[in-house]
Amino acid sequence: MRDDGRLALGVDVGGTKTEIILAGRGGRKLGETRIPTEPERGAEATLRRAAEAAREAFGADIGGAAAVGVSVAGQVGRRGVLLGAPNLGWTGADVRRLAIAAFNLPAVVVNDVRAATWAEWRLGAGRGVRDLVVLFIGTGVGGGAVIGGRLLEGADGIAGELGHLTVAAGGRACRCGNLGCLEAYCGGWALEERASQAALADPAAGAALVRLAGSAEAITGEVVAAARKAGDALAARLVEETGEVLGAALVGLVNALNPRRVILGGGVLDGFPDLLDRAVAAVHARALPAARKHVQIVRAGLRDDAPALGAADFALVRRPRMRS
Amino acid sequence: MRDDGRLALGVDVGGTKTEIILAGRGGRKLGETRIPTEPERGAEATLRRAAEAAREAFGADIGGAAAVGVSVAGQVGRRGVLLGAPNLGWTGADVRRLAIAAFNLPAVVVNDVRAATWAEWRLGAGRGVRDLVVLFIGTGVGGGAVIGGRLLEGADGIAGELGHLTVAAGGRACRCGNLGCLEAYCGGWALEERASQAALADPAAGAALVRLAGSAEAITGEVVAAARKAGDALAARLVEETGEVLGAALVGLVNALNPRRVILGGGVLDGFPDLLDRAVAAVHARALPAARKHVQIVRAGLRDDAPALGAADFALVRRPRMRS
Repeated sequence: MRDDGRLALGVDVGGTKTEIILAGRGGRKLGETRIPTEPERGAEATLRRAAEAAREAFGADIGGAAAVGVSVAGQVGRRGVLLGAPNLGWTGADVRRLAIAAFNLPAVVVNDVRAATWAEWRLGAGRGVRDLVVLFIGTGVGGGAVIGGRLLEGADGIAGELGHLTVAAGGRACRCGNLGCLEAYCGGWALEERASQAALADPAAGAALVRLAGSAEAITGEVVAAARKAGDALAARLVEETGEVLGAALVGLVNALNPRRVILGGGVLDGFPDLLDRAVAAVHARALPAARKHVQIVRAGLRDDAPALGAADFALVRRPRMRS
Repeated sequence: MRDDGRLALGVDVGGTKTEIILAGRGGRKLGETRIPTEPERGAEATLRRAAEAAREAFGADIGGAAAVGVSVAGQVGRRGVLLGAPNLGWTGADVRRLAIAAFNLPAVVVNDVRAATWAEWRLGAGRGVRDLVVLFIGTGVGGGAVIGGRLLEGADGIAGELGHLTVAAGGRACRCGNLGCLEAYCGGWALEERASQAALADPAAGAALVRLAGSAEAITGEVVAAARKAGDALAARLVEETGEVLGAALVGLVNALNPRRVILGGGVLDGFPDLLDRAVAAVHARALPAARKHVQIVRAGLRDDAPALGAADFALVRRPRMRS
């Protein structure tokens, strides 16, 4: 699509900061600003502050933006109402209506992981692909998918919780209440919990990790990475198991969804880049031959601004109106 | 959609029989016939015999059918070429071209489980729903999905292998080569294998099953059902575990795809109808609240003729042409 000169604002409301980007077609970034988020002040005040920051940075007309895309850490229903937002405490907030009022612009609201998935698809490592799976493996594990050239949305607009696929029935307790979720093994919190538990269960094996961290409870992903680099066997085993579970999940996703490309990103992958190779090896060894034949497994192409960029681009493409 | 008088032929080529249905809009069945399949004679001869049978049953003009939909037990690529068909031995066959030649009608080719998914969506328990997951739990476990009002197809046309979602990383070996697939626990073959292994591992616990079957190796699903009815503890445990794994898989699918409805069918479910209740209980206990809130989990609405009916309806909707 040619650049038609239209601009949109992308606002990514995270738990600690709100990222604001003015962008044109193709992810052309014309400016950005950032303010701290104080979720306890509520959705309305937070969006008003974001709108003030946008006017300060881009002028009273917000750089001539035609629409605003708001990305939020929460489950966004089809009309832009939050169905669940534990990190922000905004469950039930009508973010779309509040954003229209604050920015005086047509608004569209999208979950942050879905916004990042959209960004990877349109502007990042997923360009040109119609069937795509994206997994962000950070503290939690989020994801999204593009199916037949359309973003996976689901019946209530909340599809894509790929971190809560069950990969070990009856297994480790996840923060979500299920047992054996992908996140309960591969999420950053889970890796740390597994490391602490392993070090407590076998103090001899865990000695190096505990020495580096100060205590078993204080073991972080960084500590695991450092210990593994120094040749620690327990750290190596923890990462190997993480790769096995990630690989098992990807085999299932490739079989079920037959994507052309799988994109992996997030802090855990940054800390343990060889998890990508392990995932590729698992898929090539164990996915159904016809499904694995043409699948590409690659690193994410964008950085932390993916949700804000994705939300802006989403607004450019969806062309929301002031009223639904 | 009104019945516009158009008719299509649905041909479901299974490993042992080929089902042939003449149908109008809305699954209106005008006639059916059936012949044995002899897969070793090849795809071309099999489709010719099916066309002869259709002409015998419905007249030289095949009842005036405007198109034929062919359902096959195999992985069907986007242009109707089989990418894999282990049961028929027809990998590589251009079934669409062969069907056009045999029936002298425009043809569309679809995997049998996808055809049944389509039938459930358009004519069965999934009517009116835009986001749907279907699982058929028979000897194998197959599935399909409708996402945003479109049949899930995937990059190569082979998406929907939900039986090969990994639900127990590093778990039981599946016939597909992966470890811990849903099918490796809940498929009929897997239930029988689990029962045999359990009876061999603990002869005292397995005594009732072995007595009914004649030997541990001969335990079938029917034997498990009978023993369970008679109060056998091992049989009860095997079914309970099957329900737990099925529930775990469904929790993950509901989280990942946010369907409005989940349809369960197949021989194992017919033999153990309470698996449905177990699956419902698992989803309501452990899926993400926003995803489980509105999801309905129901039994399949159609019978064995679903693939042939679905293939006919698919042909009516897709309106294939003689050449691609």
